[in-house]
Amino acid sequence: MAIKTVLALSGGLDSATLLYSLHQQGDELYCVNFSYGSKHNAREREQAARLARPLGLSYQEVDLDFFTALIRSHLLKSGGEIPRAGYDKETMAQTVVPGRNGIFMSILAGYAESIGADRIAIANHAGDHFLYPDCRPEWVSAMGLAILLGSEQRVGLHAPFSHLKKSEICRLGSELQVPFAETWSCYVGGETHCGACGTCGDRQHAFKEAGIHDPTIYADYS
Amino acid sequence: MAIKTVLALSGGLDSATLLYSLHQQGDELYCVNFSYGSKHNAREREQAARLARPLGLSYQEVDLDFFTALIRSHLLKSGGEIPRAGYDKETMAQTVVPGRNGIFMSILAGYAESIGADRIAIANHAGDHFLYPDCRPEWVSAMGLAILLGSEQRVGLHAPFSHLKKSEICRLGSELQVPFAETWSCYVGGETHCGACGTCGDRQHAFKEAGIHDPTIYADYS
Repeated sequence: MAIKTVLALSGGLDSATLLYSLHQQGDELYCVNFSYGSKHNAREREQAARLARPLGLSYQEVDLDFFTALIRSHLLKSGGEIPRAGYDKETMAQTVVPGRNGIFMSILAGYAESIGADRIAIANHAGDHFLYPDCRPEWVSAMGLAILLGSEQRVGLHAPFSHLKKSEICRLGSELQVPFAETWSCYVGGETHCGACGTCGDRQHAFKEAGIHDPTIYADYS
Repeated sequence: MAIKTVLALSGGLDSATLLYSLHQQGDELYCVNFSYGSKHNAREREQAARLARPLGLSYQEVDLDFFTALIRSHLLKSGGEIPRAGYDKETMAQTVVPGRNGIFMSILAGYAESIGADRIAIANHAGDHFLYPDCRPEWVSAMGLAILLGSEQRVGLHAPFSHLKKSEICRLGSELQVPFAETWSCYVGGETHCGACGTCGDRQHAFKEAGIHDPTIYADYS
C-alpha cells in the first residue's frame, strides 16, 4: 500500500524536487501551498499549481492572513524592503520569518491526522541551517517528536533533504526531470527573478556548483 | 524586569485562571484568542475579551479560517453534532481537533519571537490527557523543545497546569478571584451552557469536587 504523504509545496526548487522524488517513489501525495503574506507568494503559488496539477495530485491552497498581523519579517508585505546583494548575516536575518515552519508543519499534521495520512514532508536543506533555526536538524527532530506525540495516529515528519546542499538537490532534481523553469525562488516577487536578492544568489550558486544548466531568467545576473 | 508572556486565552475556565495567575505574578501579558471554526467560538471570544480588557492587557483576536477546510472534527461548524451525555471515549473523541494545540502554540511562538517575548503559555491540564494527545505532558515537552530550538531567542513553552486536575484549577481560580461567570466551556455554543455535553459535565464536576460555588447557568443541569 502506498505511503500517504502531505507535502508542503512552496513552488520553489527544493519542494519541487521533493515532490518529484516522492511521486516517483509511489507516495500518495496531498500538496498544500501556503500564502502567508510574503512578497513573493503570488509567484510561488502560480508555480506550485503548475507543478502539482500536471501530475494529477491533490493540491490545496491555504491562506494564512494572520502572518502580517502577528509576525515581523522583511519577507512579508507588512515588513521593510528585501535586502539586495553584498549583505551579511544580520541583514539577511531580516528575511527570517519567525515560527514559519512550525506553523506550516503543525497545520499539515492536523490535516494529515484528519485524512489518515502517514506522514508530512518538508524540503528544508543544509543550506538553510545557518540562517533559519526552523530548518536545522535538531529542530526537525524535536518537531517530529511533537507531531508524533500530538497525534493519535502517530503522524511522521519526513525531511529527507535535511543534510543535502542545495546543489545536491539540483542534481537530484535534474535526474528526476524536475521542470526547474517552473519553480520560483526570488524573494522580491517581480515579473522575473531579480538575480540580486539572497535567495536568487543561492539559486544561481547551486546550479553552478552542480554543473547543471540554470533555465531561470534573471533581471540582473551577477 | 517582568517576564514577557504570550498567552493563549480561549475564554474558558482554565485559561482564565492562568491569565489571573500570570497577571498576579507580574508577567507582561499578551493575550491571543483564536477563532478556528468551532461551534462555540463566538461565545468563547466574547468571554476572552471580557476577561482581558478590564485588566488593561494586550488582547488580539486571530481568525484561522483554514480549520474548517483541512481539519475534521465534530467540534467544528463543518463537522457533525456535538455528542450529548452518556457517551464513551470513542464518541467523545469526535470532539478532538487534530493538531489544534500544535497550531496554536506554533503561531504564538512566531508572535513571541516577533515581539521579543520570553515565553508562550497554555492552560492544558491533567483532565485533558485521556482524550487529547496534544495536551499530554510528553507532548508539551517535545513541543517546548521544538519551539526553543526553532527560535533564535529561545522562546519557552510554559504549561503550569499540565499536572493539575480541573478541580484544582477551580480552587486556584477561586483564590485568585477569577470571575468564573465570565468564562465559557460548553461545546454547543448556545445562549447558555447546555449542561449536557462532555465539557459541561467536566465543568460541573470540577466545581463540585473543589467544593466551590458554580455560578454557571446551565440549560439542563444533570
